[in-house]
Amino acid sequence: MAVVTFLSDYGLDDDFVGVCHGVIARIAPAVRVIDVTHGIARHDVRAGALVLRRALAFMPAGVHLAVVDPEVGAQRRAVALRCAGDEARVLVGPDNGLLWLAAQRCGGVVEAIDVGRSPLRLEPVSASFHGRDVFAPVAAHLAAGSASLAEAGDPLDPAELVQLALPRARATDAGLITHVLHADRYGNVVLDAGHEDLAGSGLRLGRAVTVNGRRALYATTFADVPRDGLLLYEDGYRVLSLAVNRGSAMAALGLDRDDEVLIAPAA
Amino acid sequence: MAVVTFLSDYGLDDDFVGVCHGVIARIAPAVRVIDVTHGIARHDVRAGALVLRRALAFMPAGVHLAVVDPEVGAQRRAVALRCAGDEARVLVGPDNGLLWLAAQRCGGVVEAIDVGRSPLRLEPVSASFHGRDVFAPVAAHLAAGSASLAEAGDPLDPAELVQLALPRARATDAGLITHVLHADRYGNVVLDAGHEDLAGSGLRLGRAVTVNGRRALYATTFADVPRDGLLLYEDGYRVLSLAVNRGSAMAALGLDRDDEVLIAPAA
Amino acid sequence: MAVVTFLSDYGLDDDFVGVCHGVIARIAPAVRVIDVTHGIARHDVRAGALVLRRALAFMPAGVHLAVVDPEVGAQRRAVALRCAGDEARVLVGPDNGLLWLAAQRCGGVVEAIDVGRSPLRLEPVSASFHGRDVFAPVAAHLAAGSASLAEAGDPLDPAELVQLALPRARATDAGLITHVLHADRYGNVVLDAGHEDLAGSGLRLGRAVTVNGRRALYATTFADVPRDGLLLYEDGYRVLSLAVNRGSAMAALGLDRDDEVLIAPAA
Repeated sequence: MAVVTFLSDYGLDDDFVGVCHGVIARIAPAVRVIDVTHGIARHDVRAGALVLRRALAFMPAGVHLAVVDPEVGAQRRAVALRCAGDEARVLVGPDNGLLWLAAQRCGGVVEAIDVGRSPLRLEPVSASFHGRDVFAPVAAHLAAGSASLAEAGDPLDPAELVQLALPRARATDAGLITHVLHADRYGNVVLDAGHEDLAGSGLRLGRAVTVNGRRALYATTFADVPRDGLLLYEDGYRVLSLAVNRGSAMAALGLDRDDEVLIAPAA
Repeated sequence: MAVVTFLSDYGLDDDFVGVCHGVIARIAPAVRVIDVTHGIARHDVRAGALVLRRALAFMPAGVHLAVVDPEVGAQRRAVALRCAGDEARVLVGPDNGLLWLAAQRCGGVVEAIDVGRSPLRLEPVSASFHGRDVFAPVAAHLAAGSASLAEAGDPLDPAELVQLALPRARATDAGLITHVLHADRYGNVVLDAGHEDLAGSGLRLGRAVTVNGRRALYATTFADVPRDGLLLYEDGYRVLSLAVNRGSAMAALGLDRDDEVLIAPAA
Repeated sequence: MAVVTFLSDYGLDDDFVGVCHGVIARIAPAVRVIDVTHGIARHDVRAGALVLRRALAFMPAGVHLAVVDPEVGAQRRAVALRCAGDEARVLVGPDNGLLWLAAQRCGGVVEAIDVGRSPLRLEPVSASFHGRDVFAPVAAHLAAGSASLAEAGDPLDPAELVQLALPRARATDAGLITHVLHADRYGNVVLDAGHEDLAGSGLRLGRAVTVNGRRALYATTFADVPRDGLLLYEDGYRVLSLAVNRGSAMAALGLDRDDEVLIAPAA
C-alpha cells in the first residue's frame, strides 16, 4: 500500500485540505492519504517541524507531505528529500526548516531535489496555494511511482537546506534549565529534555521537584497528582513535559515559547 | 472490507488522531479507518458513551475503537468486548463506562478480554498515550485478523465491567420529568426519553407544550417553528430533544447536564 | 476507483459526518469518501455553494455529496443532478441553491432527479438528518453503481431547480465596484471579479491601488507586502481577493458579506 501522510496549518474550516486530497486522488487513485494533523498554528513552522518529527516513526514509510509555508510565492525553495536512514521515506514541502527535524530524526538526507519548477506541478501554478499546485502533485506522483525522485525536479546539495535551530537544555548548579518547545491544545508543555537529562541531578521519579520555583511531582501519570496538581513527566513521545491534571500547565505557569524552565529538587 | 471505527476526545488540533491512524496502517494496511468523531469534550466519558451508542448501528460491523480516558496510566482496565447481539462487532477502549452503553445496545457482552498487558501492544508502552500504544494496535490486529480476541489479552468476567448509570425519565401528575443527557455543538439538547414516553400524557404532535414552564411546539422539524422558536422533537436518533430554530436550546433554557426538564401540556 | 466527495456544515465536533461515512461504507464498501470540508458556517448555503464550485475541478469525477440544509424536513426538494459538461459527475444534496453554482460550472444539468422519496433512502427517514437518511445512501448507491440515477427517484425538469443569485462586479468611472462573496478563516476576502475585470482600468500588477479608499498593493503574493500590509491579488482559485499579510482583511476593512468594495487607481 502506497501512502502519503499529510500535515499542514490549513485547518479544516476551509476546503484547502480537501482540495489537496482531491488532487492526490486524481493523480494517484490507489494511494492512501493519512492526515497527521492540519491543526498546526498558522505559519508556525517550528511547531509543524516538531510535530512532524515526533509523528514520523508511527507513520508507514511513504511520502510525508508537510505544508506550513508563510513565504509561499516568495523565494523559498520547494523540496523533496529522501531520508538516509530509511530510503522508503521521502519528505515533501517548503525548504523553510519544516522538514529539517524529521530529516535529522531519520538519519539525514541522502538525496535532495528542488521541486519548485517540477514538471509534476499542476499548471497553472498559483502564487499562493503551492500545497495544491506543487507539493500535493509531487507527493502523489512519488507515492504512486509515476515519477522517480530524480524526475521530480532539479538536484540540490543537501548542505544547502534551511536548518532549524532549537534551544538546548543545560545542567547548572541550580538545576536543569530547559525551554518551552511547544504546547498542545490541552496546555501540556513539551520541554527540550528527556528523563536521561535528569540523571545525576538527584531528581527521582515519585519525588517532589520545583518547576520555576513551583512545587510539582516528578511522576509517570496524570493520575499521580490530584486535580489541578502540577506534574513533570515523560510524555507519550519520551520527552519531558509539564502538565496540570485536567488543566493547562502553559497557563498555570505563565509560559511562552522558548521561556526557560528551571527544574530543581524540592527543598 | 475490514473496518476500525474510531471515536475519541483527542481533537484534531494535535497529531494524536493522526498517529493512531498511522499505527493502525502500519499493522493493518488493508483495514479502513472511519472516524466517528474526535470532538468529544475532553475527558467526558459519558458524552463519548452516548455518541458511541447512537452511532454504532450506522457503522459497518468491525472493531469499534473508542478512547476517552481520563485515568490513563492509573488502575483502570483496558478492554476488548465482543457484542452478544452481533459477534462481528468488537468494542475496544478503557473500562470506564465509555463502552458500556454501546455494549448494552448491541445485546451485551459475550466475551471480554483485558488488553492492559496485551502482547499486541506497541513497546515501550507510554504512561499517557494508550490510544497509540495499547488500543490502536489491539484494534488493528483484531480487524486485520492477525490476532483473535482471545489472543489479545486475558479473559475477564463481563460482570466485572464498569457500568455507566444514566438518569431516567419518569411520568408524574405534573408531566414527564426528563433530564439533559447531552448537547451537541448547536446547543440542541438530548433528553432521556422518546416519543413513546409521551404516549398517555395527552401531548400530541403539532400542539403546544411547556418545557420547564416555557411555551414550545411539539413538532417534527425545525421549520415548524419561527426563527428563535423553541421546539420539542424527536431527533435524528429517535430521542426526544429540544432545539431553538437557528439558536441554542441549552442557552435559551439555561440548562446544564442532568438538569430536570419538565414537559407538560400547555395551559 | 469510485468516489464520493462530501461537503457539509456539520462540523467535526459531533458524529454527524462520521455517521454519514458509516452509512456510505455499509452500502458501498469499495467506494472512497473524500471530505471537501465540513467547516461551512452553519446553514450558510451560499458559502457552501461557492466552496463546492471552486473545489469541484480538483476532485475526481464521481458523486459530489453536499449538505447545507437549513430547511430540512420542510418542503425543499432533495435532488441528484448529472452534470452536462462531465456526465461522470453527479451532484447530490438539497435543492436550495447549494448545488447551483457547481452545476453551472460543470456545464449545467443534463438530468435531474428528485430523491426526496427515493427507494434508496434509509428507513425510517428522520425529520432532521437527511444527510444520513437520504443524501448519503443515494450518493453511496450511485457511486457504487448499485442504482442508476434514474432509479434514485422521480425525474425533474432542471428548469425547476432553485437558483442562486450572486452580486456582479461592474466597472464605473470611479473604478471597479466589486462585492464581498466570502471570507476564509484567515479573513481573506473573496471578491466577485478576476484579473480580467481589471483590464482597461489602468491598474497594473505591482502598482498601488486603493480599496475603499485605503492604499493597497496590487500584487501576486503575500510576500510582496510587509506584515500587516493590505494586498489585492488573484487567489489560488484565480479570483480577486483581499488579504492582510499575517492578518485579516475582513476585519481591517470592516467588511460584511455583499458589501461593495471599490477598487481604483491610487492617487
